[in-house]
Amino acid sequence: MATPDERGADGATAYDELIERYRQYQYLQHAEMVVMWDQQVMMPEGGAPARAKQRGALSTVGHDRLTDEAIGDLLNRIDEGELDDDQRAVVREIRRDYERAAGVPSDLVTRFSEYTAENHRIWNEAKAADDYDDFAPRLDGMVDLTRERSAAIDSARDPYEVQYEERQPYLPLDRVEEVFAELRDHLVPLIERIRTDGREIPEVVTGTYDAETQEELCRAALDTVGYDWDRGRLDTAPHPFMAGTQFDARVTTRYDESSPLAGLMAVIHEYGHASYQQGLRQDAYGSPLGSPRSSGVHESQSRFWENHVGRTKPFWELFLPIVKEHFPSLSDLTVDDAYAAVNRIYPENCIRVEADELTYHMHIILRCEIDSALVRGELDIEDVPEVWNRKMEEYLSVVPDTDAEGCLQDIHWSMGLASFHGYTVGSVLAAQLDAALREDLDVDGLVREGEFDPIREWMTEHVHRHGKRYPTDELIEEATGEPLSAEYFLDYVDEKFADLYDL
Amino acid sequence: MATPDERGADGATAYDELIERYRQYQYLQHAEMVVMWDQQVMMPEGGAPARAKQRGALSTVGHDRLTDEAIGDLLNRIDEGELDDDQRAVVREIRRDYERAAGVPSDLVTRFSEYTAENHRIWNEAKAADDYDDFAPRLDGMVDLTRERSAAIDSARDPYEVQYEERQPYLPLDRVEEVFAELRDHLVPLIERIRTDGREIPEVVTGTYDAETQEELCRAALDTVGYDWDRGRLDTAPHPFMAGTQFDARVTTRYDESSPLAGLMAVIHEYGHASYQQGLRQDAYGSPLGSPRSSGVHESQSRFWENHVGRTKPFWELFLPIVKEHFPSLSDLTVDDAYAAVNRIYPENCIRVEADELTYHMHIILRCEIDSALVRGELDIEDVPEVWNRKMEEYLSVVPDTDAEGCLQDIHWSMGLASFHGYTVGSVLAAQLDAALREDLDVDGLVREGEFDPIREWMTEHVHRHGKRYPTDELIEEATGEPLSAEYFLDYVDEKFADLYDL
Repeated sequence: MATPDERGADGATAYDELIERYRQYQYLQHAEMVVMWDQQVMMPEGGAPARAKQRGALSTVGHDRLTDEAIGDLLNRIDEGELDDDQRAVVREIRRDYERAAGVPSDLVTRFSEYTAENHRIWNEAKAADDYDDFAPRLDGMVDLTRERSAAIDSARDPYEVQYEERQPYLPLDRVEEVFAELRDHLVPLIERIRTDGREIPEVVTGTYDAETQEELCRAALDTVGYDWDRGRLDTAPHPFMAGTQFDARVTTRYDESSPLAGLMAVIHEYGHASYQQGLRQDAYGSPLGSPRSSGVHESQSRFWENHVGRTKPFWELFLPIVKEHFPSLSDLTVDDAYAAVNRIYPENCIRVEADELTYHMHIILRCEIDSALVRGELDIEDVPEVWNRKMEEYLSVVPDTDAEGCLQDIHWSMGLASFHGYTVGSVLAAQLDAALREDLDVDGLVREGEFDPIREWMTEHVHRHGKRYPTDELIEEATGEPLSAEYFLDYVDEKFADLYDL
Repeated sequence: MATPDERGADGATAYDELIERYRQYQYLQHAEMVVMWDQQVMMPEGGAPARAKQRGALSTVGHDRLTDEAIGDLLNRIDEGELDDDQRAVVREIRRDYERAAGVPSDLVTRFSEYTAENHRIWNEAKAADDYDDFAPRLDGMVDLTRERSAAIDSARDPYEVQYEERQPYLPLDRVEEVFAELRDHLVPLIERIRTDGREIPEVVTGTYDAETQEELCRAALDTVGYDWDRGRLDTAPHPFMAGTQFDARVTTRYDESSPLAGLMAVIHEYGHASYQQGLRQDAYGSPLGSPRSSGVHESQSRFWENHVGRTKPFWELFLPIVKEHFPSLSDLTVDDAYAAVNRIYPENCIRVEADELTYHMHIILRCEIDSALVRGELDIEDVPEVWNRKMEEYLSVVPDTDAEGCLQDIHWSMGLASFHGYTVGSVLAAQLDAALREDLDVDGLVREGEFDPIREWMTEHVHRHGKRYPTDELIEEATGEPLSAEYFLDYVDEKFADLYDL
C-alpha cells in the first residue's frame, strides 16, 4: 500500500506509525474510563482527592499524546492516494481529532479544566441553596470559554456549531435544529392532548421491592436480551451509565425500592449502549474503525433497546412472567398494566432525568435553545431562569417552584455547553433504525419468542461494525436509506400514545 | 527558600517544578494501580486483551514522564544548600528514581517488557506441562536481560545487587545476606526439631465454612483492628493483595471453604499493608515524603499485623468469640486450639504461598540463593531443578515430586530476578519493630482489650508518616534504635515455637 519512500527507518509506513500513536492515546482514554467507572461504582468516599489528581494526569498525558507534533508530521507525510477506503477513514478521523485538539492552546485547556473543576463545587452549592445568582457569573464564564475554544478551533464559524461538533461530528447542526423544531411543533400539542384528553392510567405497581431481588431481576433481563457477561458486568451507581470497550462494556443501574420497573428500564437502556461497544470490531481496537461513531449514535442504541424493545407489548408478554417470579406480589399484573406502567406520561414532572419518553425531549430542546442563545449572544445570563420557566410553561404547562428544580438542576452547564443534543438525536435515530429493521425482520415476533440475537446482529451489521468508517450522516443513510428524519419518531409516538391514551 | 535566580518565569522554583513533575508521574503510577486492582478483582475475563494495551500505555507514559529531560535539567539546577532536610530527602529520592530509569535505554525497556509479557505464557505452559526445559532458555534470557539492565544503571557494581536495589533501596545487600545466613543456620535445625521432637498438633478446624460468612468474619476482623473503611474496601482476589494510596487503600482476600482461618489471616496481613498506606501523609500525596519506603518495609507492616498481632494468644482471646458467632459449629474450640491452628508448622509442604511462619523463610532464602548465583554466573540454568531439590531436602527435608511444584511454582522469575528478599526482610523487621513497640506499650494488654489504635499510631509515628524521608537503613535505626538484625525474629520464634511444640 505504501511507496518505499514513505517508510521510516524500521520499515513502518507513516500510516502504520500514525495509527499506532493514535492507539496509544486511545488506550490512555480507556484507562481513564476504567478509573472513572471505579470512581462511580467502587471507590470509597475518602478516595476522591487522589482520584482527581489521577484523572487530571491521565487527561493531560492523553492530550499531550494526541497533540504530539509527530502526529501532525505523520498526517502531512501520508499520501492519501495510496490508501484504501478504510485507511482514508482512519486518517480522516485522526486528522479531525488532532486538528481540533491541537488548535486549542495548552493554557486554554488548563484554564478550561480548572474552571470546570471549580464550577462543580459552585454549581453544587448554588443548587443546594437554590441561588441562581451564585452560579450565573460562572455560567457567563463558561460562555466566554466556549467562544474562545470554538474560535481557537475555527474562528470563521458559529461558535455554538463548532462546540456542538465536539460530540456530534458530521451531523449538520442546522439539520438537527430543523428536526428539533419539528419535534417541538408536534410534541407540545401531543403532550397537551394526553394531559387533557388522555385516559387516566392508574398506579398499579405500588409497595416495596427489595433492591437485592431487583438486582436479580435486572440480571435476568440482561440474560434475556443476550448480554455477553464474559465482556461485561452489572453494578450499582448513583446515576446509571455504561463504560467500556469491545472487550469489557459494563452497565450500571440503581434501585428505587418503591419502583422496581425504573431500575429495570435503566438497565435495558444501558444494555443498549453496551451492545454497541460489544459489537465494535475487536481487531480494530484503538482505531477509529473500532470506536463508536458519536454520542447521538450511541444513544440511538440505548434508546432502541429501551423504547423499541423494552417498552413494547411483545417484550412484556415475554418478560412479565419473569418479573412475577421475582416479585410474586405482582402476580395479578397484566401485560397491558405493565405496558401502561412503563409508558405512562408525566407532564407535571420538572426534572429531566425523571422524564418519560415524550416530555424528555422538551427538556432537551429547551436546554439546547437556551445554551445556543447564550453562546450566540442572543440571551443574557440573568434572563436564563425566566426564559427557562417560560419555556417550561409553554412546552409542558408546568413551572418549577425553584431554580434548583429548574435551570440549576443539571450538572452539564458547569462542565460545558452544547452537550444535550445527543439524547434527542438518539431517540429520533432509534425510531428511524427501528423502522428500517422492521423492513427486514419480524421484530415483534422475535421479541415475543425471546430471540434477540437476530435483532442485535442487524444493529451490529448496520451500525456497530462500521465504527467511525462513515461520517455520521453517511452512516445514517447507509443504515436506514435516508438522512436523519423526525418522521419515524413522530409516527411511532403518535401511534403508540393514541392507542395507550385512547386519543 | 529559593534564591531569585533559581525561579522560572512564573515564579516557581526549580524545586517546586521538579516535585510537581514527579507528582504527575506518581499519579499515573497510581492510576495504573487502580487499573491493575480492577483487573484482579472486577474485570470480566474477556477484558484481558484491552487491559494489557491500557496498562502498557500507562507504563510507557509513566516512564516517559519520569525520564523527561526536564527532570534531569531541574535536578542539575537545584542548589541543595538552599533546601531544608525534607526537601533534600525529596530531591534524593527523585534523583534516584530518575537516574535509575534514565540510565536504561528505551529499547531495553521495550525488550524487557516484551520479553516478560511473552514469558508469562511460556512459564504458564511449562508449569502446566511440568517441563522445565521449555522455560530454561527463557530464564537464561532473564539472566542476560538482568545483567544488561544492571550494567546500564551501574556497570561498576555487582549486577545482582543493582537489581536487588530496585525494590530494597538503601538496605545493603551484604547486610541482608548476613541476616539470611543467620536465619538459615537457625531455622533449619529449629524446623527439624519441630518435625522430629515437636508434639502433634491435631487438625481441629474441619468441615465446610461458607464463603459468604467468611467474608462477614473478615469484615468483622477489619472492624476489630480499626480499618478505615472510608479509605478502603474488602474484595476477593485469586491471590490476596493490597493496592492503594493514603486516600484509598484496598485489601483483598480469598475464601477456602475448608479452611476459614486462611482467608482471615490473609486479610489481617493485607490490612497491615493498608495501615501503612493509610498512615502516609495526605498532604505529601505524590511526593516521596508521602510514599512507602520499600517493599521490605511494607512487608514489615503486614507481617507485624499478621504474626505479632493476629497469631498471638491475646488476639484469639479477643477474637475467638467473634469467630464462634459467625461459625457456631466451632463453639467447642478453645483459645489454645485456635492459637495452635493458626501457628502450626507444615515442613512437608513444598509450596511457598502455602507455607507457615517458619518454613516460609527457607522458601525465600532458597530462591534468593539460586537467583543470585544465576545472575552472578555461579550456577548454570540447567542445574536449577537439581539445586532447587537439593536445597529443599537440606532445608526442609522434603523434595517436590515435580518441577511444577518445585522451581516452576512461582511466577516471579518470569517477570524479574532478585525480587524475593522483601518477604523475609519484612518478617525480620516486623519482629524488630514489635520488640521496640513493646518497650513503649503493653501490646498484649491492648490487643486483649481490642485497643488497636495506640498500636497503629505507634507504627504511624515511627514508620508511616516518614514516607521516604529517611533512607531505609536510617528509618530502621530511627524506629528501633539499631540496624536490621535477625536477633529479634529468632528470639521470637524460639520462644513461641518451643512453647507451642513443647520443645
